Amino acid sequence: VQQAYVHLESRGLIKAMPKSGFYVNSFHRERLPDPESLLGSLVSSEVAVSELVSNHFLAARDPLMVPLGAACPSPELFPSSRLNRILRELAREVPLHSSEYEFPPGSMSLRRQIARRSIQWGCKLSPSEIVTTSGGMEAINLCLRAIAEPGDTIALESPTYFGILQSIESLKMRALEIPSDPRHGMDLDVLKQAVRKTKIKACVVISNFNNPLGSLMPDENKKRIAEILIPRGIPIIEEDFYGDLAFNGIRPKDIKSFDVDGWVMLCSSFSKTLAPGFRIGWTAPGRFQAQVERLKFVNTVATPSLPQMVIAEYLENGGYDRHIRKLRQAFSVQIQRVAQAVLRCFPEGTQVSRPEGGFVLWVELPKEVDSIRLHQLALRQKISILPGAVFSPSGRYRNFIRLNCGNVWTPQIEAALATLGTLCRSFS
Amino acid sequence: VQQAYVHLESRGLIKAMPKSGFYVNSFHRERLPDPESLLGSLVSSEVAVSELVSNHFLAARDPLMVPLGAACPSPELFPSSRLNRILRELAREVPLHSSEYEFPPGSMSLRRQIARRSIQWGCKLSPSEIVTTSGGMEAINLCLRAIAEPGDTIALESPTYFGILQSIESLKMRALEIPSDPRHGMDLDVLKQAVRKTKIKACVVISNFNNPLGSLMPDENKKRIAEILIPRGIPIIEEDFYGDLAFNGIRPKDIKSFDVDGWVMLCSSFSKTLAPGFRIGWTAPGRFQAQVERLKFVNTVATPSLPQMVIAEYLENGGYDRHIRKLRQAFSVQIQRVAQAVLRCFPEGTQVSRPEGGFVLWVELPKEVDSIRLHQLALRQKISILPGAVFSPSGRYRNFIRLNCGNVWTPQIEAALATLGTLCRSFS
Repeated sequence: VQQAYVHLESRGLIKAMPKSGFYVNSFHRERLPDPESLLGSLVSSEVAVSELVSNHFLAARDPLMVPLGAACPSPELFPSSRLNRILRELAREVPLHSSEYEFPPGSMSLRRQIARRSIQWGCKLSPSEIVTTSGGMEAINLCLRAIAEPGDTIALESPTYFGILQSIESLKMRALEIPSDPRHGMDLDVLKQAVRKTKIKACVVISNFNNPLGSLMPDENKKRIAEILIPRGIPIIEEDFYGDLAFNGIRPKDIKSFDVDGWVMLCSSFSKTLAPGFRIGWTAPGRFQAQVERLKFVNTVATPSLPQMVIAEYLENGGYDRHIRKLRQAFSVQIQRVAQAVLRCFPEGTQVSRPEGGFVLWVELPKEVDSIRLHQLALRQKISILPGAVFSPSGRYRNFIRLNCGNVWTPQIEAALATLGTLCRSFS
Repeated sequence: VQQAYVHLESRGLIKAMPKSGFYVNSFHRERLPDPESLLGSLVSSEVAVSELVSNHFLAARDPLMVPLGAACPSPELFPSSRLNRILRELAREVPLHSSEYEFPPGSMSLRRQIARRSIQWGCKLSPSEIVTTSGGMEAINLCLRAIAEPGDTIALESPTYFGILQSIESLKMRALEIPSDPRHGMDLDVLKQAVRKTKIKACVVISNFNNPLGSLMPDENKKRIAEILIPRGIPIIEEDFYGDLAFNGIRPKDIKSFDVDGWVMLCSSFSKTLAPGFRIGWTAPGRFQAQVERLKFVNTVATPSLPQMVIAEYLENGGYDRHIRKLRQAFSVQIQRVAQAVLRCFPEGTQVSRPEGGFVLWVELPKEVDSIRLHQLALRQKISILPGAVFSPSGRYRNFIRLNCGNVWTPQIEAALATLGTLCRSFS
């Protein structure tokens, strides 16, 4: 192993940090893919990733699978005992008020807790600006439906979260890929060109720790994207599911903190930090709030009451900040371990992202590796991964994969990564 | 009071039943409105009821309101203690598996319980045919999106549940109103004409105890509607939220029981019988299951895990059948009491429906009463009702209202109905 590290260090892929271990260097190339190629093709495309994604998820339902696909942390990383205690307390109440409808905009106590925390993101939201939703993806869906129609073009990062692409696909909108830098996110010069050339109806951005890229948009870029789009009347749908998971402990701001006149529709979720199965998300949709509330009522009538009550109580008295400190430390370590194993086991030419938050890793494989085929081969070995193609409407990233690093490191994960490395070699 | 009853009986509006009290007679006219008028205008219309509905719901969020609007039973009618106990038991489990994603098609234990009960409806579903959803309206939305596009025409009952109309409106589809009989539901002769004349993409039917009409489609009509639509390849989206609430205790069949080749997409919910705030619904979408599962994932990723687990356990061991017996008895009494009060307090010319299940009452007011104006006047007196216009895409039923009878009878409700009667008189 020591020899492997020395070899990787000599290749410039990792560096030793005193008393801390080896760290993976960022991508050699700062942009993926070559920005010129994307610039040349600044045309929107129809989206068709849903079949690929649903094939993936059908496969991943097998509990025997090593779960490197879906972005799910190990359940033991969540504050189960505390959530349990809150649940038991709420379940003493008779009649069970958790069984009543909590019509939009949703639970006041939860909205109050979200508003209270929003100061950390530079937003200073009031509870009345917030609408709770059945998970973060419902928030994204409602925002898209509130401001765009079938046929409209939505600008987004390339690569970006497949859920956003599926949403655009199901709503029969079109996607325009803006190249994204693995460190700083969306290329705003290209975005500026794009809004001049093309009619763009909205822009969806994952500002903090983009999934799958791990990029963090710097504050000056957050300010600048608002300055580019707002004067043109183009709403920004900002997805920030991972902002609380910054490894350096500094909570990044949101684009929403640079909002003018309510053009930024901030969307978030508790699925990545507290309890995915509770299905609680929210949005602060600015000037489009009335439309979003109405669509929320049409789409699912109300957000489940009990999970909202539990999360509100947890945020108020449960020790969320302490939990998050432990969680981001765990993710930071897990990402390092997976990245190191990938560089050790995968063929030469493999590069990995170096996220500073979140828990997914973006891996560029040698050109000859077809990651959809790799995904199929891996499933047979009971390993789930996500092929890069699901993160692009135009089928880019064929030789990329996303790895979920949310799970506590085990020998089983180590063995799975070694197997993936062997499978990758079979392509050359 | 006795004098009033005698007066009503002499007008033929109620009849005395030995040892049982007074019962309200059904509408004098069997159809509402005049079927000829609807037949003459068999053209689809754009739908725009959402603003009216959301105005209503915004108002109804006030907890001081006498709740005759939204179709919500009193919380004390639900089995709180038992649901509580199940919740407390589940909250002992560490790590909390309820915090994990339950990806589509959803909880196997819940789908097994639904399948087990489906024999009562003549359906014999298998768990693998069922997809759980975030409430019954998500099921309807997903089914509509799976089979129709913006601009397509959907045939439906007139009047019908406003949630269906809002869904069609938000998806930019068109609605074709088929006249409906207060006793037997959709007029199938008109439907047959309509499918010959017009391109209909799907048909949405509330087969058992239509909301707001209370109609129950007879078995022979259920068979016939399947025979009319299935050979033409027109899917039937069957909403059956109220089927378990038949006052005579005989669980009616579903259209789904006459399905051939999976063209009937059955949708249901536990919001009207167990726990609205849990937000658990489901669909058995037949041949369109793959599309529905995919859209479910796109729309809200997964249905909340914990409420599914609680309901599954309650259905298995909680005494659901005993609970339902008590519930339908309560609703039957409450409907009688509201109907009697309406006929006592409202101006002459008022007629009420005579539902044999569910818990809403459909009231025809004298022609001069504008129910939207009545709704506004009632709100000022802290009474919520639903104006008839929200149940029709073309703005019919201006002199109708729907009254929620889900609440246990109180002097406050009695007083509110008297006030409504006085307000109605102010129109003449």
